[in-house]
Amino acid sequence: MPELRKDPVIGRWVIISTGRARRPNHIGPRHDSQVTGPCPFCAENEHVTPPEIMAYRPDGSRPNTPGWTLRVVPNKFPALMIEGELDRRGEGVFDLMNGVGAHEVIIETPRHETNMGTLSEKQFEDVLWAYRDRILDLRKDKRFRYILIFKNQGIEAGATLEHTHSQLIALPIVPINVLEELSGAKGYHRYKERCIYCDIVRQELEDRTRVVGENGAFVVICPFAPRFPFETWILPKKHSPCFEHASKQEYAELSRSLRETLIRLNQALNDPPFNYIIHSNPLQEPENGHYHWHIEIMPKLTQVAGFEWGSGFYINPVTPEDSARSLREIAL
Amino acid sequence: MPELRKDPVIGRWVIISTGRARRPNHIGPRHDSQVTGPCPFCAENEHVTPPEIMAYRPDGSRPNTPGWTLRVVPNKFPALMIEGELDRRGEGVFDLMNGVGAHEVIIETPRHETNMGTLSEKQFEDVLWAYRDRILDLRKDKRFRYILIFKNQGIEAGATLEHTHSQLIALPIVPINVLEELSGAKGYHRYKERCIYCDIVRQELEDRTRVVGENGAFVVICPFAPRFPFETWILPKKHSPCFEHASKQEYAELSRSLRETLIRLNQALNDPPFNYIIHSNPLQEPENGHYHWHIEIMPKLTQVAGFEWGSGFYINPVTPEDSARSLREIAL
Repeated sequence: MPELRKDPVIGRWVIISTGRARRPNHIGPRHDSQVTGPCPFCAENEHVTPPEIMAYRPDGSRPNTPGWTLRVVPNKFPALMIEGELDRRGEGVFDLMNGVGAHEVIIETPRHETNMGTLSEKQFEDVLWAYRDRILDLRKDKRFRYILIFKNQGIEAGATLEHTHSQLIALPIVPINVLEELSGAKGYHRYKERCIYCDIVRQELEDRTRVVGENGAFVVICPFAPRFPFETWILPKKHSPCFEHASKQEYAELSRSLRETLIRLNQALNDPPFNYIIHSNPLQEPENGHYHWHIEIMPKLTQVAGFEWGSGFYINPVTPEDSARSLREIAL
Repeated sequence: MPELRKDPVIGRWVIISTGRARRPNHIGPRHDSQVTGPCPFCAENEHVTPPEIMAYRPDGSRPNTPGWTLRVVPNKFPALMIEGELDRRGEGVFDLMNGVGAHEVIIETPRHETNMGTLSEKQFEDVLWAYRDRILDLRKDKRFRYILIFKNQGIEAGATLEHTHSQLIALPIVPINVLEELSGAKGYHRYKERCIYCDIVRQELEDRTRVVGENGAFVVICPFAPRFPFETWILPKKHSPCFEHASKQEYAELSRSLRETLIRLNQALNDPPFNYIIHSNPLQEPENGHYHWHIEIMPKLTQVAGFEWGSGFYINPVTPEDSARSLREIAL
């Protein structure tokens, strides 16, 4: 059983998941090659993955057979186990609990596409609906406090399979970066009685130097203090703490924003490896006035030295004003 | 002039340093090759670096000529500029200041060694004394709040030159990870009236499952909740907030601990790329009962997906008990 362990000083939880060392790109220096052999995410290879959790099957085909347009399966090498009690306990100054959680893979297309930017608008919309459907299902499980949805595209961004996919991890704790955002946003709200993200959106839309694009519901910006070159965020214009509470119209507009942003990044940076992460309100927390969900996209262009994530101190050689201008000037 | 910009939500400062894009491994996907040509850190090539700030010259030779055993020079592509006022200012919700600071390189040997583990005990001691000498000099400058000392060894760990060296960055702000440690340690101290690091040291020395080695003044452990496989920390056994206040005897024992730890990592993991960071009390803060300086060493073995540093949530496939046992069993 994997374990969740808490750093006693800064309160960061990590998963110690020894089972994952059996993964194809297992522990060892410089093993970053991708898996070879038939792609387990392609149509006709449904039997290679664990049985599907859900799928969009417009033709009404049977589970675990071809005919699907999007498929969600358990991760074959899960970082957490879905069954069991949390069993929070202490060992002297240390805190730990069982590694209970869900680890799922969203396969975004039955075809062997390696670049999410090549998917259609409809496919992007389906991906967002799949995220929402899985959140609404998993949030019924009261053991979970947070659902982390993210994508690694490209070996350098941590992908082990090239067929375009996203991942979902349901956690019995809230990741430290989200806690920091919540605490910062709450402090601002106490002082100003306004949402800091709403204030950022308003200022960026007036200033425009860091705006990449916008539509009725979303704005795409390069943030004021980016850790990475070409880091890009997508924020809803209207205050909203939870990703899963967006409307049908908002998912349609978000799929356009996300698709356009990835196309811009592909063109500006020659199909860069990248990660994105959805930042949303923790489960079981009430809708509030201070938190504002958003997506953070981080192209992997520079070698990030360990000192940067070890210190939390980043050196970025590109201004967000320059990266926003480059992205904005891409003809779509 | 580079800029320091603050994320308005979580309070993390980043350096936006466009001048560094001229560095040899400039921005662009997958440019992580090292510099070619004569090594600027080797003896006889002193003219290739900016003029030295200090050097250990047992033979009394002149600055910027051969004869040195350790040399400190300004970084040729500094992330910050030493001259100028901080000029803290706001732009609506955002905060920024001029990128004032020092960025120095500690060249640890005149010979072209690429692995710090091959240096002698005396050379390790000199490296530690050089760190201390530079801190004592730079802390006179009241613009600075923190001195970050770190090492990147190996391309995968972010090194652009292979000749063994460390770096020092003097900052007008305190990096967020140090702030988090200070705040966590302060909370514990308020509650228990004890230093949390002292309690960790005591518990680890009793438990011993995560102890790699020890001597009179230092203990080497794999921490309870490590982010990375084989992450290893060196802590003074006696409470002490500041690295630069260690005694002669303590630097001698630390150089032994650090050297032995790198030799163990080299043998266990076949000369892995790695980073280390010295975590010490901020400048201009009084000696206190809650903070405890230490060194964190992070071998770079796994591909760290951006989602991990984006979320602050780490999945580690190796238990610290296993990595401590492997390291402990290396015959020195």
